[in-house]
Amino acid sequence: MALNIVLIEPEIPTNTGNIGRLALATGANLHLVKPFGFEISDKRLKRAGLDYWQHISLFTYESQEEFFASHKAKKMIFFSSHGEKTHWSVDYSDEMFLVFGKESVGLPRSIIENQNYEIAKIPLYSTEIRSLNLANAVAITVYEGLRQLKI
Amino acid sequence: MALNIVLIEPEIPTNTGNIGRLALATGANLHLVKPFGFEISDKRLKRAGLDYWQHISLFTYESQEEFFASHKAKKMIFFSSHGEKTHWSVDYSDEMFLVFGKESVGLPRSIIENQNYEIAKIPLYSTEIRSLNLANAVAITVYEGLRQLKI
Repeated sequence: MALNIVLIEPEIPTNTGNIGRLALATGANLHLVKPFGFEISDKRLKRAGLDYWQHISLFTYESQEEFFASHKAKKMIFFSSHGEKTHWSVDYSDEMFLVFGKESVGLPRSIIENQNYEIAKIPLYSTEIRSLNLANAVAITVYEGLRQLKI
Repeated sequence: MALNIVLIEPEIPTNTGNIGRLALATGANLHLVKPFGFEISDKRLKRAGLDYWQHISLFTYESQEEFFASHKAKKMIFFSSHGEKTHWSVDYSDEMFLVFGKESVGLPRSIIENQNYEIAKIPLYSTEIRSLNLANAVAITVYEGLRQLKI
């Protein structure tokens, strides 16, 4: 049993480091789609991910096209502040792909506007905040998936 | 309806910044117990918390004694890798205090060993990881509380 975390074009190395730590802690696979805002060997990423980065089940892709071509028949849920349903009402399943966009602008418009994709949001309760930290958002949704799946 | 997030002696400003963002996004109050590993006016904290730090419902305490004396009759749940029950099985209630220790060593021994305190853990699924990033841990538990309370 495992979930799949997907980061499309992540920009901030400490976020990816923290998400790597989370992936390892939860038995999730981590999929990183280029271009990144940092080098994967970047010292900051290793520092944020500490010394266990080597243990992560990590997959990298040169482009969104390569990622989607590699996982055509997989169940995916996309997270965005544009989502209509909440992350609580998603029906998580084993091997599901949880897909997140970049820190600055979220998911690309081509995904948001694709009528075949299910898009969910984490509810926010303030008009002062447009989004959560990316690593926090991933943590919230992965653990809701694990809770539902009773892993 | 609101939850209360408590950080005892937080060390890393970007974590506190992200948790401030989370507190504001969730309508939670944020309680910070000194000593901190940074200045509250630290530029890094403001940068991590962006320009909405001023909007957070923030309370600071000079010591653990001052914090506990200020909230004697409140319902509290403490989070630690030493906890026995999972964060899913906690019975969250409105106004509950969710208490977290410092990044390096977690909650002080005086709290862990206090038989009157309920201590919960976030389940981890790897022997390579001892704990999650503090901001991620807070995010996971606050959203589980919100889910249960249907806020």
